[in-house]
Amino acid sequence: MFKVKVYITLRENVLDPQGAAVKSSLHSMSYESVSDVRIGKYMELTIEKNNRDIDEIVKEMCERLLANTVIEDYRYEIEEVVAL
Amino acid sequence: MFKVKVYITLRENVLDPQGAAVKSSLHSMSYESVSDVRIGKYMELTIEKNNRDIDEIVKEMCERLLANTVIEDYRYEIEEVVAL
Repeated sequence: MFKVKVYITLRENVLDPQGAAVKSSLHSMSYESVSDVRIGKYMELTIEKNNRDIDEIVKEMCERLLANTVIEDYRYEIEEVVAL
Repeated sequence: MFKVKVYITLRENVLDPQGAAVKSSLHSMSYESVSDVRIGKYMELTIEKNNRDIDEIVKEMCERLLANTVIEDYRYEIEEVVAL
């Protein structure tokens, strides 16, 4: 079994209106030292072992469904969990 | 200047309909080995140095705005960036 953590972020040159809204809220709550906020997604997947390479599966799932690669970047961490 | 990464996840006993939808989509794309999907948020904040303790500021922002602590957990990483 694998525990996979996927981080999806907007590409650097893509506007982030949600981040801008959070930044403005933080300013209005007097956290003026916050100069930038970018909001992305974080996913935790549990994947059972099968005959395909786990790295290949995760990459393919990111490209095909989890991330919109036109505007988003992704990175992931795979950890194998051994059942006792 | 500090770069802060905030990870917000749903508490374990809270239902995640978005995760369930993604899992079902992955199954229909024949990734049947995916047994669980949990979706959270990932935020990158840039915070200028000021006279308050950075750890205290970030914790306070998470509690007051970024996370809904009734249903969400949060954790964060703080990295100091030194301007050259």
